[in-house]
Amino acid sequence: MRDVYMVGAAQSDFGSFPDESYRSLFSTAFEGALDAVDGDLDRSRIDEAYVGTLGVGGRQLGLAGPAVTEHVGLDGTSCTRVENACAASSVALRQAVLAIRSGVADVALAGGIEVMNDMSGEQTRYWLGVSGETEWERMAGTTFAGVYAQMADAHMAEHGTTREHLSRVAVKNHANGAKNPHAHLGFECSLDDAMNGMTVADPLNLYDCCPTSDGASAVLLTSRDVAEEVTDTPIRVAGTGQASGRVGLFQRPTVTSIPATSEAADQAYDEAGCTPDDIDFAEVHDCFSIAELMAYEDLGFCEPGTGGEYVASGATEPDGERPVNLSGGLKSKGHPIGATGAGQAVEVFKQLRGEAGDRQVNGLSRGLSQNVGGSGGAVVVTVYEEGWA
Amino acid sequence: MRDVYMVGAAQSDFGSFPDESYRSLFSTAFEGALDAVDGDLDRSRIDEAYVGTLGVGGRQLGLAGPAVTEHVGLDGTSCTRVENACAASSVALRQAVLAIRSGVADVALAGGIEVMNDMSGEQTRYWLGVSGETEWERMAGTTFAGVYAQMADAHMAEHGTTREHLSRVAVKNHANGAKNPHAHLGFECSLDDAMNGMTVADPLNLYDCCPTSDGASAVLLTSRDVAEEVTDTPIRVAGTGQASGRVGLFQRPTVTSIPATSEAADQAYDEAGCTPDDIDFAEVHDCFSIAELMAYEDLGFCEPGTGGEYVASGATEPDGERPVNLSGGLKSKGHPIGATGAGQAVEVFKQLRGEAGDRQVNGLSRGLSQNVGGSGGAVVVTVYEEGWA
Repeated sequence: MRDVYMVGAAQSDFGSFPDESYRSLFSTAFEGALDAVDGDLDRSRIDEAYVGTLGVGGRQLGLAGPAVTEHVGLDGTSCTRVENACAASSVALRQAVLAIRSGVADVALAGGIEVMNDMSGEQTRYWLGVSGETEWERMAGTTFAGVYAQMADAHMAEHGTTREHLSRVAVKNHANGAKNPHAHLGFECSLDDAMNGMTVADPLNLYDCCPTSDGASAVLLTSRDVAEEVTDTPIRVAGTGQASGRVGLFQRPTVTSIPATSEAADQAYDEAGCTPDDIDFAEVHDCFSIAELMAYEDLGFCEPGTGGEYVASGATEPDGERPVNLSGGLKSKGHPIGATGAGQAVEVFKQLRGEAGDRQVNGLSRGLSQNVGGSGGAVVVTVYEEGWA
Repeated sequence: MRDVYMVGAAQSDFGSFPDESYRSLFSTAFEGALDAVDGDLDRSRIDEAYVGTLGVGGRQLGLAGPAVTEHVGLDGTSCTRVENACAASSVALRQAVLAIRSGVADVALAGGIEVMNDMSGEQTRYWLGVSGETEWERMAGTTFAGVYAQMADAHMAEHGTTREHLSRVAVKNHANGAKNPHAHLGFECSLDDAMNGMTVADPLNLYDCCPTSDGASAVLLTSRDVAEEVTDTPIRVAGTGQASGRVGLFQRPTVTSIPATSEAADQAYDEAGCTPDDIDFAEVHDCFSIAELMAYEDLGFCEPGTGGEYVASGATEPDGERPVNLSGGLKSKGHPIGATGAGQAVEVFKQLRGEAGDRQVNGLSRGLSQNVGGSGGAVVVTVYEEGWA
């Protein structure tokens, strides 16, 4: 199996940008990724491109992938749109990895885009509903926050997770995001703020919920031969895993964990030849605070049911044993659906290269990203290591 | 590079099915594909699944892939939705091929679905518009028939293609589709009918246009090891190619050919180690009659500009030198967008195995499929051969 390296990665700002289009946002991310390559990598060398997006804000729906890659001068290059709801661009990244491993590509682009703030609140609610289960959740009135609220409620009842545990996630991620110039909500919040936010779907309040963002991200992956030519700071995609779960929460065997995370993680750890203990830091899918606690457990960072205690222990703070969401996560950095997965890879890239500015944590050599589609209908887990294999 | 074999393939009926859902249609195709395998292939052995769909008729939009695969008992299996407009499920097939070549999968599923007849005409027109270029074509009032009419008009002016040449495509494909029990418009039409249909977008009339269909298709692909275990009639995916073109017709260097077809075909021929002359039969993307004539030329079956003469010569009739669209094509078999690409593979599978019933042509050993997204924004070409490599 051919080794795959991440040689460039960048994102646009995440936020609300009425003067930007999905093409201009993608262009910012893509040109940034090219610029981030140590040496010269001409765009004409890209063999395959994958773009993740859920809906690009009501504009170009069919062929949204080729519509953005043509805008950055990749007219003839094979480009495929992929979509697994909020996991769209980690799926793109995984497909790019498979394309290189298959031998079809030596250089592959994985990116993501979403424009979410050009719609009224009502449309956004409808649109977000489509990525949960449609017939028995959305049409019964359940929102995304409602689905995750059910998980939080059950987790609190079964495992003694507390209001404060949930809020610790928000406080940590906002503190991290305040150091990220690309963050949508780049401000700190106090524990008092986070515990007393306006209720969105009990027990989740405003500070438990990520924003709806506009943004784009892009990652350049290459075979080892090309990586040796263009980079002195190789980041290897050491392992990748993907699994599906029942799309509707009500059809799953548990509501206090996301089984697809464990399955995808097992595949990724197996490929990387490592265990959860070997992971120095992670970007996880904190669309709602409870999701980050479940991710700790499902990824094997702590025992099942102890996610709340784990965050309260400080283990996932920047100075803890395993920093999580140094970028600010979905909560603070923002969540432009299609751009989120590749955006996680951007943070891993920066941290492993020592280019994360004020939020840099030193001594990191192996990172992980976990990206969830829907409420667990699809999960992608990726493990990255610095250095040559 | 690992060899990939197609060991099972099937489709639902294509048509208008108010009593079916996208899940039931997919189930019909998937179970048919499993049944078509010579030996036993348990569904639990499927490692990766790819499902192509443009919009599944306004129902489950996000996570539509996992939503249909869970319905056929593939709950945990990695499933990715892919979409490149009308090329969605040939993209799915190509990604399944790459997954097997990469070593991540030994058994992969590629399928497609679309439900188009649960909407009013106005909605359907809107929906179809999204897969052309949005800002400068659809929003300027151009329909899909309108885009292809521009191509037809130019082809007639530049190359002397005639009204009768276009209609010959319809007559041939309806004659073929009349022998296909799965066809949406499974009836013959006379040359007189085809030449005098109601104008849709001049010079294209009703008989130049494919219908909007409901339907699903599914293909099972495996590594050589697994194929040796489960089949005595191996069909090898000998070559695959994919290319993009400018999404908007007005941005392309030519309107009388689809450059992405030539580029994708070159890749596929190169991988398969063959030339156009070696292709015994083909399923091509005849969404409009002019598209089939351009496909002949862009695939190298005849010289540029001579597609009209080529069809008129009878070369692509069932008893001609290179039968095209023995299934009836999009024109007669139907065009449920996401299901079309994998549906082409179903016909190739049946013809190469001698299982095409009344429309069987004997002596075929190498087939090709060509599937176009939009008006040429993405094209996938695949070459299949009977027998072991």
